[in-house]
Amino acid sequence: MPNETCTVRHINHTAIVVKDINDSISFYEDLFGVSSGPVEDIEDQGVKACLIKIGGTQLEIIQPVQADTGVAKFLENRGEGLHHIGLEVENIENALEILKSREVQLIDQKPRHGLSGTIAFLHPRATKGVLIELVQP
Amino acid sequence: MPNETCTVRHINHTAIVVKDINDSISFYEDLFGVSSGPVEDIEDQGVKACLIKIGGTQLEIIQPVQADTGVAKFLENRGEGLHHIGLEVENIENALEILKSREVQLIDQKPRHGLSGTIAFLHPRATKGVLIELVQP
Repeated sequence: MPNETCTVRHINHTAIVVKDINDSISFYEDLFGVSSGPVEDIEDQGVKACLIKIGGTQLEIIQPVQADTGVAKFLENRGEGLHHIGLEVENIENALEILKSREVQLIDQKPRHGLSGTIAFLHPRATKGVLIELVQP
Repeated sequence: MPNETCTVRHINHTAIVVKDINDSISFYEDLFGVSSGPVEDIEDQGVKACLIKIGGTQLEIIQPVQADTGVAKFLENRGEGLHHIGLEVENIENALEILKSREVQLIDQKPRHGLSGTIAFLHPRATKGVLIELVQP
């Protein structure tokens, strides 16, 4: 029997880590004529974040506001830049069960609340260097 | 008069640099149930590349095949991972003129042929760390 797939039909967002979220929002709005959503505090991740809808998908802009979080360490070690992609699944509980049954290493064993809906991160060691977030909007 | 914008209405692709393109394609197809297009040689960039259509946008998978190219150096210095985003414009000649008039630093002064159409890269120094490719499909 072939392995069961964790079917993805949409890229929900591509996320960028920045030093100053308002400065970055102004940059994208002013240069590319796009419109951002509200800036939200995501306290359990220690970040401020906002979504910029572009066509059928989104840019997510993230600024760490607490030290010692994964995002703050990323910014410190690698500087501003692309951070992760959010792949949309229909049922995130089911998707995580499939990934566990296939022994894919996860950061989040259970879904949690994120800016784009119910989310869970896979470990980049399991995904050839790309930080992948599953999203059930 | 406000600055003229280089209007973007669509994210054409998010690109990933990898060591082994066939291995990465198998990974995404097998785990997420997506389908890739053909692997193409892009000789002037020294890479093999392919597009994976997901919903209304795409993942681009890139493997450097020549040393001393920008992509090969990226892989050497930062490892596998997210590399750039491709933002779609209606008229790339016009878009580059607007960017030049706004003194945005460019890698490509003129459009050239790429996997997704006619393309030009902006310099990440001008875009807060994100390598941005303009694409006219």
